[in-house]
Amino acid sequence: MSWEDKVRKVTPYTPGEQPRRTDIIKLNTNECPYPPSPKVAEAIAAFDEDRLRLYPDPAAADLVKALADHYQVDKDQVFVGVGSDDVLAMAFLTYFTAGKPILFSDVTYSFYDVWAELFGIPYKKCALKDDFSLDASDYLQDNGGIIIANPNAPTGLMADLGMIEKIVLANQDSVVIVDEAYVDFGGVSAIPLVEKYENLLVVQTFSKSRAMAGMRIGFAVGSKKLIAYLNDAKFSFNSYTMNHLTIACGKACVEDDLYFKEITGKIVATRERVKKEMAELGFKFPDSMTNFLFVTHPQIDAEELFLALKEEGIFVRYFKKPRIDQYLRVTIGTDAQMDALITFLKEYMKNRSFV
Amino acid sequence: MSWEDKVRKVTPYTPGEQPRRTDIIKLNTNECPYPPSPKVAEAIAAFDEDRLRLYPDPAAADLVKALADHYQVDKDQVFVGVGSDDVLAMAFLTYFTAGKPILFSDVTYSFYDVWAELFGIPYKKCALKDDFSLDASDYLQDNGGIIIANPNAPTGLMADLGMIEKIVLANQDSVVIVDEAYVDFGGVSAIPLVEKYENLLVVQTFSKSRAMAGMRIGFAVGSKKLIAYLNDAKFSFNSYTMNHLTIACGKACVEDDLYFKEITGKIVATRERVKKEMAELGFKFPDSMTNFLFVTHPQIDAEELFLALKEEGIFVRYFKKPRIDQYLRVTIGTDAQMDALITFLKEYMKNRSFV
Repeated sequence: MSWEDKVRKVTPYTPGEQPRRTDIIKLNTNECPYPPSPKVAEAIAAFDEDRLRLYPDPAAADLVKALADHYQVDKDQVFVGVGSDDVLAMAFLTYFTAGKPILFSDVTYSFYDVWAELFGIPYKKCALKDDFSLDASDYLQDNGGIIIANPNAPTGLMADLGMIEKIVLANQDSVVIVDEAYVDFGGVSAIPLVEKYENLLVVQTFSKSRAMAGMRIGFAVGSKKLIAYLNDAKFSFNSYTMNHLTIACGKACVEDDLYFKEITGKIVATRERVKKEMAELGFKFPDSMTNFLFVTHPQIDAEELFLALKEEGIFVRYFKKPRIDQYLRVTIGTDAQMDALITFLKEYMKNRSFV
Repeated sequence: MSWEDKVRKVTPYTPGEQPRRTDIIKLNTNECPYPPSPKVAEAIAAFDEDRLRLYPDPAAADLVKALADHYQVDKDQVFVGVGSDDVLAMAFLTYFTAGKPILFSDVTYSFYDVWAELFGIPYKKCALKDDFSLDASDYLQDNGGIIIANPNAPTGLMADLGMIEKIVLANQDSVVIVDEAYVDFGGVSAIPLVEKYENLLVVQTFSKSRAMAGMRIGFAVGSKKLIAYLNDAKFSFNSYTMNHLTIACGKACVEDDLYFKEITGKIVATRERVKKEMAELGFKFPDSMTNFLFVTHPQIDAEELFLALKEEGIFVRYFKKPRIDQYLRVTIGTDAQMDALITFLKEYMKNRSFV
């Protein structure tokens, strides 16, 4: 026997490219095109480096309190982690132990099945309808837990809150997680429902709407009981995850609500404008409530266009997967970046005589 | 059935107190009494906050390269994580899947059994000898993996490298992890052995000798094959864990080797001096090669002394556990802090007519 026989073999997730080149238009990982709040820079400048010799506050109380105040919940209803991936993985580990299949969509965030496999959680994928909308009846069957990305990724579509509530209500014997990574671009959050449903966990991130992907902050809001279980699991795993600077910067970011509204507003305006222009070029897409569009074109091969864009220095995301291999996920950048994209697309189509 | 029946119930680890008071002498969590390298402050000052809107480099290549250069290994032999707790937990998850009991000491870092239970890994605790030294013969039995803290915590004792090599050699069919959180205070690292043994993983941290507990950086060095498995598991779990600032600060810290030698040298000198003074007061302790002493006194109840010290504003660590409930773990602070401790102890003992 070799030591290798005892080792877990995992097919790693391939994250979107993070090219070191700075001369590109980066529309491939749904980052915010605007810098974080100036309050974040101030927090970094004010930080006393000597504090780094001490462990951070394991409860990240300053950040938790800022979030609790912002979302008008109790501080015992907030959990923070190293990006929403950390929060979600910890939630899978904590809530999905029944041995029954957990349920999620066939076209959704690609980490869900990876975490399930990693933790030995059985799962069942429920097919979205042809238009990528959610079929609530899929979530009325017996299950070990439920996770729904809303708005969904990579489709961009949002299920209305009534449907989410219906699913939560019908599953009082399971934890239902709503992953709202993209909710701040005009979506409607389920956070107000956590007061009503003890089994509902809402997860959000600082990586998109708060322009802090590089700082790694995610959080969850739920009932006190739900959050207590999550904290217990987290403290048994790694007590100190959020470093001093992350806590300080996260707090500063949340407190600057005006800036947050400004940048998300700009992105929504750009998105709506780009929707029109893409539609005029013949692209089809679900009606996105996120900071990206999930586009397909009846006459253009998605992978070919993906490569042509890359050659031009415009990075978008292509998933070679069933149902979505003729789609590209295009992050909403600045107006100038989107203009460059549209200009290229017009040229590309003209050369192929599509228009 | 309630949703709570599907939830994992964990007894959380209780971390050492992180009091917000700054008027105390904090000798309870083995932090460094000196600030991090001035190069770290420079790295923070030089950081461009706008970068925070972008995801960090998932491979943390800058930090990995700095560590590879420092330890003279290939960059494919280095893995980094959010503190050594993150690295170790990921290593448990990756390497210990055989379903056979993994082996570790009965008196050692208290996270090992917690992670094992969390991931469903069976384990067997091997009793240290009466003097807390390791019995190598315990590690010759069939197993699913081995983890040894060396120097050990909370005892402070180091097993010599010959014994470690003997254990690694005898267990070519398992992964052997050596947790060297405290090796930089005069200990001898097993890192040179990774070239010889494909199944050896050495884990270290920036939290003690590098004065960066507040930044959360840990790392592992091993064979390329071993590190590849760890990376695969990590990338499937959470690709982006080390944030931009952590990577920049970690790199700056590793590159300042002179400062590192200076502060660890000072701590070792203080430790050796305190050993003499504690011995003169009648305290007994294993011969520590770490930044703490694990002390007991034949005439003083450890818990009573722990509380008396706390009342005085001197925080040390007390574990109410079998075999060690008459010991206190005392971090080596600055000379002035240790003087205050010794002065208090003399007074305490005088009042009880022990001396």
